Amino acid sequence: MTTSHAIRHIRITPIAFRDPPLLNAAGIHAPWALRSIIELETDSGLVGINESYGDLPMLDVLTKAAPSLVGLSPWSLTEMEARVAALVTPPAQTASEFLGQQVSLAPGTHVSKNVAKVVSAFEVAMLDLQGQLAGAPVVDVLGGAVRDRVPFSAYLFYKYAEHIDKPPSCGYPPDPWGEALTPEQLVAQARQMMAQYGFKSIKLKAGALPPDEEAAGLLALAKAFPGTPLRIDPNANWSVATSLRIVEQLRGVLEYYEDPAPGLDGMAAVARECDVPLATNMVVTDFAEFRRNVDMGCPVKIVLSDHHYWGGLRATQQLSRLCRTFDLGLSMHSNSHLGISLMAMTHLCASVPLLTYACDTHYPWQDEEVVEGGRLCFEGGSLRVTTTPGLGVTLDRTALARLHDNYLHCGVRNRDDLAQMRKYDPAFTGAQPRF
Amino acid sequence: MTTSHAIRHIRITPIAFRDPPLLNAAGIHAPWALRSIIELETDSGLVGINESYGDLPMLDVLTKAAPSLVGLSPWSLTEMEARVAALVTPPAQTASEFLGQQVSLAPGTHVSKNVAKVVSAFEVAMLDLQGQLAGAPVVDVLGGAVRDRVPFSAYLFYKYAEHIDKPPSCGYPPDPWGEALTPEQLVAQARQMMAQYGFKSIKLKAGALPPDEEAAGLLALAKAFPGTPLRIDPNANWSVATSLRIVEQLRGVLEYYEDPAPGLDGMAAVARECDVPLATNMVVTDFAEFRRNVDMGCPVKIVLSDHHYWGGLRATQQLSRLCRTFDLGLSMHSNSHLGISLMAMTHLCASVPLLTYACDTHYPWQDEEVVEGGRLCFEGGSLRVTTTPGLGVTLDRTALARLHDNYLHCGVRNRDDLAQMRKYDPAFTGAQPRF
Repeated sequence: MTTSHAIRHIRITPIAFRDPPLLNAAGIHAPWALRSIIELETDSGLVGINESYGDLPMLDVLTKAAPSLVGLSPWSLTEMEARVAALVTPPAQTASEFLGQQVSLAPGTHVSKNVAKVVSAFEVAMLDLQGQLAGAPVVDVLGGAVRDRVPFSAYLFYKYAEHIDKPPSCGYPPDPWGEALTPEQLVAQARQMMAQYGFKSIKLKAGALPPDEEAAGLLALAKAFPGTPLRIDPNANWSVATSLRIVEQLRGVLEYYEDPAPGLDGMAAVARECDVPLATNMVVTDFAEFRRNVDMGCPVKIVLSDHHYWGGLRATQQLSRLCRTFDLGLSMHSNSHLGISLMAMTHLCASVPLLTYACDTHYPWQDEEVVEGGRLCFEGGSLRVTTTPGLGVTLDRTALARLHDNYLHCGVRNRDDLAQMRKYDPAFTGAQPRF
Repeated sequence: MTTSHAIRHIRITPIAFRDPPLLNAAGIHAPWALRSIIELETDSGLVGINESYGDLPMLDVLTKAAPSLVGLSPWSLTEMEARVAALVTPPAQTASEFLGQQVSLAPGTHVSKNVAKVVSAFEVAMLDLQGQLAGAPVVDVLGGAVRDRVPFSAYLFYKYAEHIDKPPSCGYPPDPWGEALTPEQLVAQARQMMAQYGFKSIKLKAGALPPDEEAAGLLALAKAFPGTPLRIDPNANWSVATSLRIVEQLRGVLEYYEDPAPGLDGMAAVARECDVPLATNMVVTDFAEFRRNVDMGCPVKIVLSDHHYWGGLRATQQLSRLCRTFDLGLSMHSNSHLGISLMAMTHLCASVPLLTYACDTHYPWQDEEVVEGGRLCFEGGSLRVTTTPGLGVTLDRTALARLHDNYLHCGVRNRDDLAQMRKYDPAFTGAQPRF
């Protein structure tokens, strides 16, 4: 009698963890970031885990799709995709129409991405199970490692010193990063992050302050860290004219220019007048948009993928093949996340030869963890891919209970950077492009 | 102490098996078809197998690349690809220049495909090992089955009754298929093959007889097998004008039109005037050519892949993603092959949702086998994907010795349909397009 490794139980646990008051095009981060922890348990008692988005609509579709996994083999990824697609109702509009109507810094919150997001949430946990069954790390199940560590970049934000709704007296721990609204404060933030993590490249989240101030910030970074690759990401909050004016100020400094202007048409207008390669996580966010970029002659030259909304690790590997075929670069986007998500990215990135840029991660902005052993350790700005079977990280159940308790008590149920910003500035409209 | 599953020994055994006198655009099949059998043995004693091309240049590059596998984990597919690419010298010309200069019915014989061919030869054997290590069939390692059996089509050829150089007295067994040079004989061949294998669709290899005779043959098949999907493949041996004239005669009959005219430009010229979708295994044979097809507005609508020269099973899955992204269809091309190659195709095709056409196979034209249990059995024109760990087929060492003995004695070292045809017709030039 053979042991059954069929999936028997699915657990989806919403969690919340502290997040600093980081400024961006949409507004500002709330004091709590949400994620979901996915556990798939087999008849044989193995548990595969993953971490994904934790907003209410995502929890709703995850819960709706979960029963379709019962009885499925951890190897049946394509069947899982078909079952999820059948259960998760797509929005009435097509994805591209939907995306064309709204510009957002976070494709991961679009309902148009529901199928891809749920598929990814389950796929990584199934790959974790596959690795455990095969006695191989997830990177091996993905074709084997082409590098044993994956470089990430320092992800700088303009920010306030403290959350408006978390006064020092309330018990919410003080923010160790302090205010960053000037070039000097930004350089100080970079020095602190580089010293702590050893990053070798820098990304600046822009689109928050007036563009000339942000350009001054980037030039200050260039002066403080000569030779370090630099990027700026205004999250499409600049007009085409502003994008072109600012890139002139940054001539010779940028490694790539991420989502300066809104829409693929806006990006194409910038690309026509600008010789710095354009990168995006906003206008090439699925395979249909990839094709549209090709049809337009590839104004976007670097796709910043994110396996959480591209449909998983294998879909991102397929995206890598498309990028190679059409001579595009590839790197990775990130949201506020913890160690499971970060380790899944690391296994993926260790498997992709094309990955020629350091990846984004919000990880330094978090101070909590849900995996055993606590916070993951960077060495020289890189994370080492684990070599034990599966993802190489396991749940710390005490931490999970604490983070779930955070969720129950924090009151946040959806990410809403605009509403949070209105607490600071009631006149803030969030209309884009703002500059 | 853990057992090492590193690859220790690589064996490459050339084999030859009987092949009937099948006519095509290049000439005629010789009495012997060549293949190579690849075995990868691990420290732990597992053996992964595969079957690939067996011509001398292929044996040469396989042998040259083999030492690079020693010590490699069966999971390290991407590392294997990098090592093969480093060892196998690409031709002086780029692949696309090379292909542009010569039209051939068999991309698998192009040296421009050497890296992809060797990668595929080793990849399938490594996937066989992975499946054995994981206790899962290869289809599971590829993401799981979307179908439990894979449909193939009847692959009809015009043919002579016997080989010119194998008189009945020489001991070479008589050909059970007989002559097929008329519509009636072609229909009889189809009836024999359909009865024996249960195929539900028909492909006619054309480009051999005058085009109007071949059109008459296809129309006779349409009449004899009403409702059965039909295809014709002149292997680019027709001019654009001939292609357009013949497709008019076949109006309403063709499922798709495979490689009527030479080159992507020729195919584009046909596509502009013809509403039957064009398929190819000659002008979209790698990712660079895929891009060229896209750049030209996709005159080719269906890619007939062949994992033996596309770089393996995973590369073909990636091709499937590209086809989905650009709304192209996908099916599979075949060469003369035995059960290992056929079973690798079957695992691959069982894993690919996009596969909406029955696949090609030359298998009915062979009467020998190299796998234990002998000839694979079709049910209703389909092959069932195996569910045991790995590829699900193992070497019959007695048969392997016999087929290798065939190789040693047959005198054939390269496929040369043109030279073989000149034995029948010394004036045959092979110049293309002939019609």
